[in-house]
Amino acid sequence: MPYYIGDVIKDEKKLVARTPEKFRETGVDTRIGIAAASIDRVNKNVLLSDAKSISYDILALGTGTTAFVPKAPGIEKEGVFVLKTLPDAIAIKSYLRDSPVRKALIVGAGFIGLEMCEALSSRNVQTDVIDLAPRPAMRWDPEFSKTIHDVLTGHGIGFFPNTGLKSIEDGKKFRLRLNTTEGDTEADMILIAIGVRPNVKLASDAGVQIGNSGAIRVDFSQRTSDADIYAVGDCCECYHRVSRKWTHIPLGDVANKQGRIAGTNIGNGTAIFPGVVGAQSFKIFDLAAAATGLDETEAKQAGYFPASSLIWGNAFAASLPGEKKLGLKLVADRATGMLLGAQTIGVRSAVDKINTLSCALWNGMRVEELAYLDLAYAPPFSTAWDPIHIAARELLKNL
Amino acid sequence: MPYYIGDVIKDEKKLVARTPEKFRETGVDTRIGIAAASIDRVNKNVLLSDAKSISYDILALGTGTTAFVPKAPGIEKEGVFVLKTLPDAIAIKSYLRDSPVRKALIVGAGFIGLEMCEALSSRNVQTDVIDLAPRPAMRWDPEFSKTIHDVLTGHGIGFFPNTGLKSIEDGKKFRLRLNTTEGDTEADMILIAIGVRPNVKLASDAGVQIGNSGAIRVDFSQRTSDADIYAVGDCCECYHRVSRKWTHIPLGDVANKQGRIAGTNIGNGTAIFPGVVGAQSFKIFDLAAAATGLDETEAKQAGYFPASSLIWGNAFAASLPGEKKLGLKLVADRATGMLLGAQTIGVRSAVDKINTLSCALWNGMRVEELAYLDLAYAPPFSTAWDPIHIAARELLKNL
Repeated sequence: MPYYIGDVIKDEKKLVARTPEKFRETGVDTRIGIAAASIDRVNKNVLLSDAKSISYDILALGTGTTAFVPKAPGIEKEGVFVLKTLPDAIAIKSYLRDSPVRKALIVGAGFIGLEMCEALSSRNVQTDVIDLAPRPAMRWDPEFSKTIHDVLTGHGIGFFPNTGLKSIEDGKKFRLRLNTTEGDTEADMILIAIGVRPNVKLASDAGVQIGNSGAIRVDFSQRTSDADIYAVGDCCECYHRVSRKWTHIPLGDVANKQGRIAGTNIGNGTAIFPGVVGAQSFKIFDLAAAATGLDETEAKQAGYFPASSLIWGNAFAASLPGEKKLGLKLVADRATGMLLGAQTIGVRSAVDKINTLSCALWNGMRVEELAYLDLAYAPPFSTAWDPIHIAARELLKNL
Repeated sequence: MPYYIGDVIKDEKKLVARTPEKFRETGVDTRIGIAAASIDRVNKNVLLSDAKSISYDILALGTGTTAFVPKAPGIEKEGVFVLKTLPDAIAIKSYLRDSPVRKALIVGAGFIGLEMCEALSSRNVQTDVIDLAPRPAMRWDPEFSKTIHDVLTGHGIGFFPNTGLKSIEDGKKFRLRLNTTEGDTEADMILIAIGVRPNVKLASDAGVQIGNSGAIRVDFSQRTSDADIYAVGDCCECYHRVSRKWTHIPLGDVANKQGRIAGTNIGNGTAIFPGVVGAQSFKIFDLAAAATGLDETEAKQAGYFPASSLIWGNAFAASLPGEKKLGLKLVADRATGMLLGAQTIGVRSAVDKINTLSCALWNGMRVEELAYLDLAYAPPFSTAWDPIHIAARELLKNL
């Protein structure tokens, strides 16, 4: 009988299917709210925090990630949050509801930090964001980061670059004071959004191999170095088809796919997770941002010789009304002419360009071919020469 | 010196760049409003309708298509239109402006017919459409055609299936009477929208080969059977990468690409047009419809053994507000598991799914791999399992 060990929030309507009762109906026993303390791989037992143990034939690890919190003085103060789990979100919403939050500070201008800029600002909370980096959304080209920066500014959100968190203390005007490398500022709430770390202790303590990325090493079947232990989701690595390296890309869609692959293999089927190309997207106010594959730095690290093009185009015919601007950057390998990556920003279609280009990356397409790729043209939905074609032609000049 | 022979509408602001003066500035001589009567391939001369001639080293044919008009009595009457050229569009707009059109009848429920349903209906013209086929947009699955039919009905547009045009005469209540195989009806305006035919007479009279599709045969360089004569655009064939046949797909984006390929080759460059996968789309009111590759009938004709799946999914997270429904049908080959085609209908993203799937078709992807394709997931833009993944998994059950 398979076991489920973990937290379930029974109050959340959407999670009803995960209650112990529901699991039991389908023949799955659950141990809710009990931690797995260690794995005895020799005797094939998991020791629980209540000193009981469960034996296994096949063990699947889905230990996820934990939001990274720096060891800064005062970081444990009330009003300082991370946003990783559903309880984190509930805690933030409760705090916003129970005590008037006039101003919020976000540490980290990545996906979560930027999405929370929109969420808090939309609740009329004055919001600023700091980052160690010189630009928000550093993965995107400086020209696109500038667009994001402009959107923040346009919504009254301050972005403070090259700024590190030093400590948090009680504030005077607002409840908390954030001391940074560039001076002090106050707010009623602070959100730490500087990334996540995979939860690998249970695995590594048991001698299960950890990959170079710091996440659990798995093969294409989602098996770890122990053939009876699988790992899936944010705690484990996935194969990047462009960098040809095993990487740690903790995203929900990847986790879903890995879960299905592991489940199929555990159930005596045969399934292979073919890897990722690094497709990702986020929304900030009316702006869509998406990326796939490698940027120039990652391309160099992977042994390629990157060249790039960046164009601004229209999502649909210029003669039709409506916001249609989008930017597209392509990165390719000078040596082979192969597409290596893409970034977009602008209207919603920006994300869809990235999906088409993810499929191109998946198949190792060359830029030359991309310049003539057959796409569905109709004036309300596209331009006769799609931004993909235009950017590909530009890039060919640089190869 | 290259020549341009054809019609230019000087009044249209957008076409200024095509006036003889503009061409002459760039070193191109033009003969506007003069037809090319015949090609003397031996002496490499084009005889013009004014009995003059122009010699050539390389000749490029871009003779396009003509809207097909059946030989029905009364078809030449005032108030009967086709919509192929800019003058056609101007004539329709003038007619609508100069004489009150209370009711319009459209013959043909393909792209042009359906788009004109929206255009006329939006001008408060009561509009009906007839077609020989049992459904509108026959290329789409009956379930999707039904959605299109429902949209027509919802906008007060009558669709009359299995109905052929017999003749047109003067009307009583309205200006024109249309006699059909299923009875008579009257309207102030009739639009014939039953397809186009490639203009190949100039080429075929000169002994240039015509392909099985009826359009001018070309190779991957856009050369015809005469190495000194190129053909581009709607008058010529293109290679279909899925059916592996030369086909006639007269679409603007394909024509643009072919023109660039021919121009590069004529200018002593080297370029290959890699063909099409049949990507296409149209909009009818708020509904987007798109397709790519082959439907089941075409797949059988091409020697495949088609199986299919059809699902309804969401364009983005169900928890977010807004219209998000879209339908997706996939067709694949039982023998190889290869994707053969796709059709979508619904919100705008439907078209973008088709673009991603066009890229998959272009690369000969198998459905098994499609089920795990890496796409950019974020709740405002997609679902963790994209409709593409869901439809691919469904299809795998049928292979």
